[in-house]
Amino acid sequence: MQAKGGYQGRFLNVNLSTGAITDLPLDDDLVAGYIGGKGFGARLLYDMAEPRSDPLDPANPLLFMPGPLTGTLAPSMREAIVFKSPLTGIYGDSYHGGLFGPEIKYAGYDGLIITGRASAPCYLYINDDQVEIREAGFLWGLDTYQTYDRLYQELGDRSFQLACIGPAGENLVRFALIDASPHRQAGRCGGGAVMGSKNLKAIAVRGTHGVRVADGARFLAAVNQGLFEHRRTPGYTALGTLGDIIGHSEIAVIPTFNARQASFPEGAKIHGTEHYARIWLRNTACMCCPMACSKIGVLRRGPHRGTVCDNVEYESLALMGTNLGLSHLEGLAYACHLCDTLGMDTMSAGGVIGFAMEALEQGDLRPQDVEGLDLRFGNHQAVHKMLDMIARREGIGDLLADGVRTAAQRLGGEAYKYAVHTKGLEQPGYEARALPGHALGYMTGDKGGEHVQGYLAHYESYGYSWRGKPVERFALEGKAELLIFQQDYQVGTNTLVKCDFVKGMDEGRGGPLPATFAEMLSAATGLDSAARDLYRVGERIWNLTRLFNLREGITRQDDDVSYRAREEELPDPPVKGRKLSREDLDYMLDDYYRLRGWDENGVPTAAKLGELGLIPDGQALGIT
Amino acid sequence: MQAKGGYQGRFLNVNLSTGAITDLPLDDDLVAGYIGGKGFGARLLYDMAEPRSDPLDPANPLLFMPGPLTGTLAPSMREAIVFKSPLTGIYGDSYHGGLFGPEIKYAGYDGLIITGRASAPCYLYINDDQVEIREAGFLWGLDTYQTYDRLYQELGDRSFQLACIGPAGENLVRFALIDASPHRQAGRCGGGAVMGSKNLKAIAVRGTHGVRVADGARFLAAVNQGLFEHRRTPGYTALGTLGDIIGHSEIAVIPTFNARQASFPEGAKIHGTEHYARIWLRNTACMCCPMACSKIGVLRRGPHRGTVCDNVEYESLALMGTNLGLSHLEGLAYACHLCDTLGMDTMSAGGVIGFAMEALEQGDLRPQDVEGLDLRFGNHQAVHKMLDMIARREGIGDLLADGVRTAAQRLGGEAYKYAVHTKGLEQPGYEARALPGHALGYMTGDKGGEHVQGYLAHYESYGYSWRGKPVERFALEGKAELLIFQQDYQVGTNTLVKCDFVKGMDEGRGGPLPATFAEMLSAATGLDSAARDLYRVGERIWNLTRLFNLREGITRQDDDVSYRAREEELPDPPVKGRKLSREDLDYMLDDYYRLRGWDENGVPTAAKLGELGLIPDGQALGIT
Repeated sequence: MQAKGGYQGRFLNVNLSTGAITDLPLDDDLVAGYIGGKGFGARLLYDMAEPRSDPLDPANPLLFMPGPLTGTLAPSMREAIVFKSPLTGIYGDSYHGGLFGPEIKYAGYDGLIITGRASAPCYLYINDDQVEIREAGFLWGLDTYQTYDRLYQELGDRSFQLACIGPAGENLVRFALIDASPHRQAGRCGGGAVMGSKNLKAIAVRGTHGVRVADGARFLAAVNQGLFEHRRTPGYTALGTLGDIIGHSEIAVIPTFNARQASFPEGAKIHGTEHYARIWLRNTACMCCPMACSKIGVLRRGPHRGTVCDNVEYESLALMGTNLGLSHLEGLAYACHLCDTLGMDTMSAGGVIGFAMEALEQGDLRPQDVEGLDLRFGNHQAVHKMLDMIARREGIGDLLADGVRTAAQRLGGEAYKYAVHTKGLEQPGYEARALPGHALGYMTGDKGGEHVQGYLAHYESYGYSWRGKPVERFALEGKAELLIFQQDYQVGTNTLVKCDFVKGMDEGRGGPLPATFAEMLSAATGLDSAARDLYRVGERIWNLTRLFNLREGITRQDDDVSYRAREEELPDPPVKGRKLSREDLDYMLDDYYRLRGWDENGVPTAAKLGELGLIPDGQALGIT
Repeated sequence: MQAKGGYQGRFLNVNLSTGAITDLPLDDDLVAGYIGGKGFGARLLYDMAEPRSDPLDPANPLLFMPGPLTGTLAPSMREAIVFKSPLTGIYGDSYHGGLFGPEIKYAGYDGLIITGRASAPCYLYINDDQVEIREAGFLWGLDTYQTYDRLYQELGDRSFQLACIGPAGENLVRFALIDASPHRQAGRCGGGAVMGSKNLKAIAVRGTHGVRVADGARFLAAVNQGLFEHRRTPGYTALGTLGDIIGHSEIAVIPTFNARQASFPEGAKIHGTEHYARIWLRNTACMCCPMACSKIGVLRRGPHRGTVCDNVEYESLALMGTNLGLSHLEGLAYACHLCDTLGMDTMSAGGVIGFAMEALEQGDLRPQDVEGLDLRFGNHQAVHKMLDMIARREGIGDLLADGVRTAAQRLGGEAYKYAVHTKGLEQPGYEARALPGHALGYMTGDKGGEHVQGYLAHYESYGYSWRGKPVERFALEGKAELLIFQQDYQVGTNTLVKCDFVKGMDEGRGGPLPATFAEMLSAATGLDSAARDLYRVGERIWNLTRLFNLREGITRQDDDVSYRAREEELPDPPVKGRKLSREDLDYMLDDYYRLRGWDENGVPTAAKLGELGLIPDGQALGIT
């Protein structure tokens, strides 16, 4: 059955090697099985990427995928960017809010498929049907903010929306990000390096098409219901994601000093209210979002006085702040701003610099390796310098630019013991040992140790209820089931592409309920959709990305936490003595595989795949 | 007692004649008596303006006045612009949202006081303490959108916020507007002409200061309470102010064909959902507002295809749409966009063009007077041409540029009979005869026939309850009391400066309650404030602007509706036969004066003024 709205009916397909620009009609089966966003991206990536190819092989696609509700009145919709990750070597995606994703829809496309490699720096110009690959030598070398200024000057039209990379993406830093209007970052997994490897500095898009919805009155009713549900809780409107840094230290969940501990003694200095008192200027919101979690600030003290920047967000604060021991608020904010302008993921950057700090303490790096830089925990000036060296691959920065896993391998010796990652993705801002169910999310994440799709941190930290019972923080029982429930819903709604902060199914959290998102989708597309379908599609995609990763060679042994989390006890109360033993991890993993319908090696059974329509029922899989 | 937060402690005082740039310390008595925003503006204007002076006299001030909560986390704060109106000759103000008002605070000022007249076109450059009057010949003649583009190019820094005028302001069109980042309009009363008369094309402001609040924790609690109250109703999030144009025609409240009737047969063609289906692109929000009533759209059909514009809002739709009989949706939207780019109030422009259309029908204008333009109701192309002629004062446009009252005087004969205004301000988008209490608001408005401070339209249209009883639409009894309640609160909170759409004291409307705003104010400033104080300050300001207007020569006879509303019966059901008789008007006005503590001529009694601290108790007033 064909969709009557929500979709534009075609992808824009650009081969930068040949210069070919074509439309690719949207396939009804793709719509039925994968909805949009991450779903489209995962399926296209699976089908297009040569198994075990170099992630930066020009033939591999970079996929910009808004969803069927992106560009409509539906609240809090975003865009997925999907690619094979140069940081992890497996499936990679990242999400961003703002106005770039909707504009792709307005230009008349359900997504951008970009392959090949331009012979010289270029930018992609999209003005409805006028699509051109344009010379971008004048942009090369500029940071992301400068790129916007210069490109807007060139275009002479502020109604274009932009995406671009910074110097880090140009230099193939493997955790380089893609920045999208108005400076929202798709940070994780190194999409910026993929873009850089294609010699693609920026994309400018402007569209005049609307997004038709199948049943306007029904859609509007669903939107208003969604807005009502949005309003049940204040969410991140006032203080963004920085609500309670002191509290996070008190209950000991925040990675500190390269994840050696889970509480930061100086948390009060970088507590949320401090950021608001000293930096905050204003709130901004994504398309139709009443939450407005995004905050703009300005530095008012120190050498970077006058710099307008984003307010620091939680994950950046954890990895770049507590994890590096930075308690100088402006110094921390400027470090995050450098990541934004140079174009690097704050999380991986914090992970890799924390690793370098510890390597210096351990003697695995010597002072002369870092050119005498006083790179110790707490020194924000050294962090600023090191960020620049990484982005430009200067000196030791060249080593760190490949991520913590590769850096540890190259250093050799026992450096692997303090390389904190899963499958090459640096650990997010909740310490694995402090929250075992959340850690199972790191172990099983389709893009490595990621925190969003399997987000159990609030259940375990705050004792949210699930199925009528408060979740017990350190219990192992039941965590796999709750995690699967979360993963399937988050992945299922990453097809829309809804915001991660909008989870009506969590107690105590705001946002439209699953049934309301399903109703918006039905009304917009004219295709029947129910909440259970979102979970089901999520499960299908999760199995597909698993197949992708198995094809790339991952095994049960890769579904792990870091060495540190497994072997070293946390030192700080109330988590003193905690680690994740092999037995505990195996207990949770066995449970998880079983509930997923995967075998003991983490391979989806033919029966499960058949049930999901991924292969004909009972057919052999061909993955060893 | 001195404020401990919310204020920056000084105004920026710029004399464009002499080039003098000084700080004016903020006076504690001014804070105590007038809070900010409209209060500061009204007091400064009263004290600075020479009685009965030409509104465009260089000595008269143009006052940009944010409030004590503007630039804080408090939701939905805006800015007041106060001046003597060149359209009405009396007190004038207008309000805008967006980011310009907060930025004045960030630059370290509680407001801008601009006097004098530059010898050549200039713009005011404010970068914290660096303030310069800069040459602006390169901007003169540009429309508002072009001015932003060119000025941002000149500044090379998108973190500046801008205000500017268009060609209409340069040409002293008496209903020219001031446009402020990001294209929010202070439309009413001709502030743009005041700015133009000073040779001031634009203001660019950028600041790095924060706005200190006295008690951070208490303030944050009040903000969260305010956000909670904001969320009780969806307000204008989904469809902006265009919720129900068909309904407005059915109950007959919307001025149509130069206010000859109150229903538009073709309302369905310009109903809100049509705008969303055909034009809408995205929502935008002012500082910290979870409502996001503002909508950006694009024209997708016709000769202006590709033009990015604001979605039409209710008052513009009424005056430029139904009042001119425009049922061509894109034609209507482009007419409103022309007003935005040329820099004119859509409401007055619609009023004056409706007047011209009727003058052509009546023979008071001849075809050759409009250069053969087919300026009949419903012809959007002729409207577009006439808007351009008005902004440039070409041909008949020069006459219309002075507003409907002056145009009727110049045409002479019986033209006054269809000049629809009060005190020179063209009637807003609710027909006076259809809503008598709302009409009393037009009669008594301090800036003439205005609709926001005395907004009874929803009470009368929808039967909202007040003091436990539904308000009866056509009753006269009790309307004065309800109106005073509304005026005092709106004016009192126009000191903060809160948004007009946020009225927690109205049943069925969203927004923080009066006590919550008072609590935010107390927590931010450290000065005790209660809800009753907001009403009381509103009453003080309302009496002060009355004194201003009496000083300018207004009398009871000016507190009137238009001739048409008084003498001609509405033709359309369910309001067929309705008009506002002299007796009915006098009944309401007597009631209003009495409840206000004004004498039978509408002059505040000495006792009332003494009670409000405006003059020492019992002292003679000196106004005849």
